[in-house]
Amino acid sequence: LTPKSPAFLFDLDGTLVDSVYLHVIAWAEALEGMGLHVATWRIHQRIGMSDDLIAHGLAEEIRRETTEQEEIEIRKRHSEAFLKRADQVRLLPGAKEILSHMTDCGVRWTIATSSNRQRAQRSLDLLGVGKDVPVVTREAGMRGKPNPDLFLKAAEQLKVPPEACIVVGDSLWDLLAARRAGALGVGVRSGGYAEAELSHAGAYRVYDDTAALLRRLDELGIGGPHEQSLHK
Amino acid sequence: LTPKSPAFLFDLDGTLVDSVYLHVIAWAEALEGMGLHVATWRIHQRIGMSDDLIAHGLAEEIRRETTEQEEIEIRKRHSEAFLKRADQVRLLPGAKEILSHMTDCGVRWTIATSSNRQRAQRSLDLLGVGKDVPVVTREAGMRGKPNPDLFLKAAEQLKVPPEACIVVGDSLWDLLAARRAGALGVGVRSGGYAEAELSHAGAYRVYDDTAALLRRLDELGIGGPHEQSLHK
Repeated sequence: LTPKSPAFLFDLDGTLVDSVYLHVIAWAEALEGMGLHVATWRIHQRIGMSDDLIAHGLAEEIRRETTEQEEIEIRKRHSEAFLKRADQVRLLPGAKEILSHMTDCGVRWTIATSSNRQRAQRSLDLLGVGKDVPVVTREAGMRGKPNPDLFLKAAEQLKVPPEACIVVGDSLWDLLAARRAGALGVGVRSGGYAEAELSHAGAYRVYDDTAALLRRLDELGIGGPHEQSLHK
Repeated sequence: LTPKSPAFLFDLDGTLVDSVYLHVIAWAEALEGMGLHVATWRIHQRIGMSDDLIAHGLAEEIRRETTEQEEIEIRKRHSEAFLKRADQVRLLPGAKEILSHMTDCGVRWTIATSSNRQRAQRSLDLLGVGKDVPVVTREAGMRGKPNPDLFLKAAEQLKVPPEACIVVGDSLWDLLAARRAGALGVGVRSGGYAEAELSHAGAYRVYDDTAALLRRLDELGIGGPHEQSLHK
């Protein structure tokens, strides 16, 4: 491969695995348990952000001051509520296939998620992503999306400059973080965001899901399944 | 009021009550229970349609032929899964207030929903809608949205021509049904649809929720709370 072939940085929730709506329900349960009522669509809009930003933002939506302690409590409850449902997470169409295809073509890729390792682990297992892939999860001290940190670290792990990376994500926050990182953002609708919202946030292209993206990889200047031999 | 003052036909789920995401989860559970895996965002997109169209459409999304018997079974399971969660339904901001305001101003209004009476009842109780309001639910023999039947029947109940009605709904299917009925459609984002999607489906205006709509009623040529005295 020439150095001009981009590397791929994939978001996890809503992009590779069908977990966004489970996160929505888990946040709703966490808030409800603390007597906070936030309309569910406003929760959905914030999924994909780092969870401190979600917790803070949701409190703001209902114009209610929350203490740092309360925000920590909301995040803890969300994490518990999500882990309780973790066995309901399924792969999204094309997720496993696009990763294999990239590997087969020699295109470098990894995953960068705002989730911590514990919440991400089952999804990584479903995808068959092993320890050889330098997955970036959000651990203590790192800023989550829409900050660019996770994608910058992922690019660094792949030893590719961020400008040579294509970020694939389902949420506004992925696309904003991609731009902040200087990478190209590609949107997928599988997290429930509309095409127009993703385009307005700067998506270079928008596809239904990774299955649709895999069929159209040539649009990004990457060989699709039919062109695989050219890259070998 | 002059005959030129429009009447309002409100959708229920996602417009007045925060139930769309509970319906999404209920459909996902119904499908999963029958071994059918449909990506959750595709379920979300169909909420607000009549449930025979949802059941049929979802089977089509995964390119799997389903028998009529299976579709009846999916609908039955969805209904059970939703009723199990009915106590989690909450009012959306502004819902109760906008209905009271319409009543206070002498603007005629009612509710037209693709749900049947059993599924709608708890939401109507939350709203404090009594038997004096000619609510239209979908009963045997009626076609649900995006067919115009429910809105046509609601207009008829109010004795107002459909052309003099404003439909308020959160989904594409409300807006398509409104156009089919010859009514003006106004979108609210509280079901999780993006503004652009609702506009593209023909929404005359789009608001975050009924609370925002209530604050901007003058944009529709109806007195807002501050103009209430003019209508009295």
